[in-house]
Amino acid sequence: MSFDPGFRETLGDLLAWRRDVRRFQSQPVDEALLRHCLALARLSPSVGNSQPWRFVRVADPARRKAVIASFERCNGAAAGTYDAERRETYLRLKLAGLREAPIHLAVFCDEATEDGHGLGRATMPEMLRYSVVTAVHAFWLAARAHGLGVGWVSIIEPECVASHLDVPAEWRLVAYLCVGHPVEEHDDPELVRHGWQQRDAAAALLER
Amino acid sequence: MSFDPGFRETLGDLLAWRRDVRRFQSQPVDEALLRHCLALARLSPSVGNSQPWRFVRVADPARRKAVIASFERCNGAAAGTYDAERRETYLRLKLAGLREAPIHLAVFCDEATEDGHGLGRATMPEMLRYSVVTAVHAFWLAARAHGLGVGWVSIIEPECVASHLDVPAEWRLVAYLCVGHPVEEHDDPELVRHGWQQRDAAAALLER
Repeated sequence: MSFDPGFRETLGDLLAWRRDVRRFQSQPVDEALLRHCLALARLSPSVGNSQPWRFVRVADPARRKAVIASFERCNGAAAGTYDAERRETYLRLKLAGLREAPIHLAVFCDEATEDGHGLGRATMPEMLRYSVVTAVHAFWLAARAHGLGVGWVSIIEPECVASHLDVPAEWRLVAYLCVGHPVEEHDDPELVRHGWQQRDAAAALLER
Repeated sequence: MSFDPGFRETLGDLLAWRRDVRRFQSQPVDEALLRHCLALARLSPSVGNSQPWRFVRVADPARRKAVIASFERCNGAAAGTYDAERRETYLRLKLAGLREAPIHLAVFCDEATEDGHGLGRATMPEMLRYSVVTAVHAFWLAARAHGLGVGWVSIIEPECVASHLDVPAEWRLVAYLCVGHPVEEHDDPELVRHGWQQRDAAAALLER
């Protein structure tokens, strides 16, 4: 299996145009497309082939409301930690599209899975969570390739969200995703565009 | 920017044919290609646009030897934790290509970076490491698209490896990668092929 120059170049475009999306259209997401992107995500690497990712769609209005409340609590607290000038910038940012996104996906790591038989995680137990992150990233790229936007919301209390979602105690929240059709498309991050954090021009490869 | 059906399908092939590679040809890796794949990896999402990934190429023979020694220690210890039958399977697996791979890449997370100004990681500080994982995964996919194989070795002592590589104390090892031209190509994981862990047919999307 080899990949031609055209595909390689377009893969570069996909990586460049993937964004953390916070502005969604109300248009629903096709169910088969969502399932297809999840199936692609499950091809991701996992330590010991443990496949510890657990995907939960959150549609219940009360549960969504609890997640939004957690975001608003954390976001307000975070704003309070900055000095006046940076706080002003912070408060102008739109950091999540939780109210608009037609789909909320909570992605957990099953810390108690026996799949993989512990291979590869004796000295680096965090590999289990890292495996879930690769699945989140694959889902994100697949979604973007199919015209969907994904936003990863981390300004929440993970234990609080997990408890509202009534999942097994051994499941740890890795990512809370908003998914839907984006309102706009950009090849630069929102946080660059709005003056929060520039891209780092220094991209050293250290030699040892 | 939209992506056509042909690209979408080939992206699925890329995700399906990406592998954790442990068998490498001795043929060197083109320097410009390595740099290109690293540049693509740096387009990855990062919390607060913090870009905490730090790439270190390990070429010094003494340092490589120390990493290999760490792997062999951990691998022997891990084998000892299984019962006789599973240990026999474990010992038949080839779990790393550290001796053969022309390139060793250690990927760290700079836990002390001020880039991103802490945005998005007050309640989930692990987001910084997760950002590095997305860069590792993007590098992996880009490399595979260009005919290179990548293997992620986690059967090592991360602090020991970091100390041998003489990096700042605030850098935490996220991934140690072997990179090179693969000897073989497969669309199923090595651990499936050799009877360690099958793919999970149950791929539920939970509803809440």
